[in-house]
Amino acid sequence: MRIPSASPIHNAALADQLSSAINNKTKPLGSLGTLERLALQLGMIQQSVDVRLVRPAILVFAADHGIVAEGVSAYPQSVTWQMVENFLAGGAAINVFARQNGCALQIVDAGVNHDFGTRATLIDRKVAMGTHNFAQGQAMTEAECLRAIGHGIELIDGLDGNVVGFGEMGIGNTTAAAALMHKMTGIAVADCVGAGTGLPPEGIAHKASVIEAAVARHAEVREPLDILATFGGFEIAMIAGAMLRAAERRMVILVDGFIVTSALLVAARLHPAVLDYCVFSHCSNERGHQRMLEHLNATPLLHLGLRLGEGTGCALALPLLASAAAFLQEMATFDSAQVSQREG
Amino acid sequence: MRIPSASPIHNAALADQLSSAINNKTKPLGSLGTLERLALQLGMIQQSVDVRLVRPAILVFAADHGIVAEGVSAYPQSVTWQMVENFLAGGAAINVFARQNGCALQIVDAGVNHDFGTRATLIDRKVAMGTHNFAQGQAMTEAECLRAIGHGIELIDGLDGNVVGFGEMGIGNTTAAAALMHKMTGIAVADCVGAGTGLPPEGIAHKASVIEAAVARHAEVREPLDILATFGGFEIAMIAGAMLRAAERRMVILVDGFIVTSALLVAARLHPAVLDYCVFSHCSNERGHQRMLEHLNATPLLHLGLRLGEGTGCALALPLLASAAAFLQEMATFDSAQVSQREG
Repeated sequence: MRIPSASPIHNAALADQLSSAINNKTKPLGSLGTLERLALQLGMIQQSVDVRLVRPAILVFAADHGIVAEGVSAYPQSVTWQMVENFLAGGAAINVFARQNGCALQIVDAGVNHDFGTRATLIDRKVAMGTHNFAQGQAMTEAECLRAIGHGIELIDGLDGNVVGFGEMGIGNTTAAAALMHKMTGIAVADCVGAGTGLPPEGIAHKASVIEAAVARHAEVREPLDILATFGGFEIAMIAGAMLRAAERRMVILVDGFIVTSALLVAARLHPAVLDYCVFSHCSNERGHQRMLEHLNATPLLHLGLRLGEGTGCALALPLLASAAAFLQEMATFDSAQVSQREG
Repeated sequence: MRIPSASPIHNAALADQLSSAINNKTKPLGSLGTLERLALQLGMIQQSVDVRLVRPAILVFAADHGIVAEGVSAYPQSVTWQMVENFLAGGAAINVFARQNGCALQIVDAGVNHDFGTRATLIDRKVAMGTHNFAQGQAMTEAECLRAIGHGIELIDGLDGNVVGFGEMGIGNTTAAAALMHKMTGIAVADCVGAGTGLPPEGIAHKASVIEAAVARHAEVREPLDILATFGGFEIAMIAGAMLRAAERRMVILVDGFIVTSALLVAARLHPAVLDYCVFSHCSNERGHQRMLEHLNATPLLHLGLRLGEGTGCALALPLLASAAAFLQEMATFDSAQVSQREG
């Protein structure tokens, strides 16, 4: 299987053209702050000053994690499939926010430990009934990992829009993501581990010790795909593959919280140019996410103390992307509106 | 003229009912962060668990300022009326963002130094052709100040929705707002003064010295309405009056940046309960705004480095209000979705 690589984005002439379009709008220089940087980035991604956001979609990948056998989550594993049912019924937070902001939603079974039968609105890409317990062995085989990446690529190729956000659901997946974070960044395990769905302090300490032991057990694992197979999840691997393909197709990538950003750590190690396509929708309240964002030199759009996952941050940030595109498209210039420029 | 007072909001039984509705939604406890606090506040404002945001509107008040004679702005005064024309033509940032987010927009001439003639879409509440120079005397008379407040009240009574945001346009008005901030909070002038539309450091220093001298000249002025009349602007006075009336009518008040928050400082000194109705849309990049927000113990929704005014922060924050209302209305509960609660 070919791992996609992000398309190059650099184009000094276009960057100048975009900056001058932004600066000539009827507003003090730089006064739209982050939205101006976002408009520039959207233009660079689309390689055009005529930025259009077309049919945004959020893909929510659900999977289970063998590591839950170590008692790392406040919720039982059955919540993963129950929440998938909730997604299919339209009652979860991501359903509400995607509807509100006009975003298509696809729910993918990446490897949930449950038989859903055939369901019209569930995309079945189940690799297995959950990963293995990485405290005892590898979470997945290399073949499973590549299959998951391949599914992610193929799902991107099925989209007809140019903006894609990623969400996830999987009891235990903050443990997988924290282990990935530690291995990909070198940041101490204690700084990678947080409360997840709501662990008390002693639960967090236990989770950290589970990860420390697993990291020691798999000390020889160093390559990004091996790290992904050893500690990751099927949803994380699919997201990593999807991100790379989205960057190859010059799509805007909306990054959600801790889990999704852990997938990006892997994707960016394989092809750093994927980062040029990423809009960081928010800084999560999950401990470790802020450090991840700093490691990536990323500036998130929203700071709402979210820690829900599902792609909720992506859906909530979407109106700001639309605002950035809209001001670039629709605002008058000093010339067209006959407004005086600054003095001196 | 009667100054409106905010309606009381406290209702322990309703607060419990709202918290339990929020906590029973299918998500880890507290995982929607700021949106949960916002949903609670919206419910308390509307005194209902059935929160509905109806026909949001942003009122943009434009006025001129005599203090510009002291050379406190990077732009000529004519930009005020030119930007009003831009608003009427639909080409300014606030037009773009209000359109995008389905928000009505009203443009009010509160006291622009320009004769617009009769214009179908401009609401004429011109108190005078700009304020006087407060470096030399009072910005406005007490009668003018009360007239402006009265116009703000009356404009709120003309609205048929339950959410109102405030914006402003007025070359020189960051100088008025900084003076108000100093007088209302006691924070040192140097910490209240910023770059406005883009002053260089020496311009900021000059602006601070102009304010210091004016504050010394009017040292005896202590009452909020006297401070407003002495240092304020017609747009600021109208906003202050409008805020109080909106709080009396139990409307959600969307607070924009530095100028609009300076109006709130006056309104809140008159009736502190107005603060219960305020949603702080963003923290501006104008120096002083963060200190203002801290003074009010306010948590803004957005941190986008905006410093444009016009009500742009309000328009950009509106989708987050809609998200807060929508999750409260539409999300499934653990019971209704048959999702397991946390263990232990």
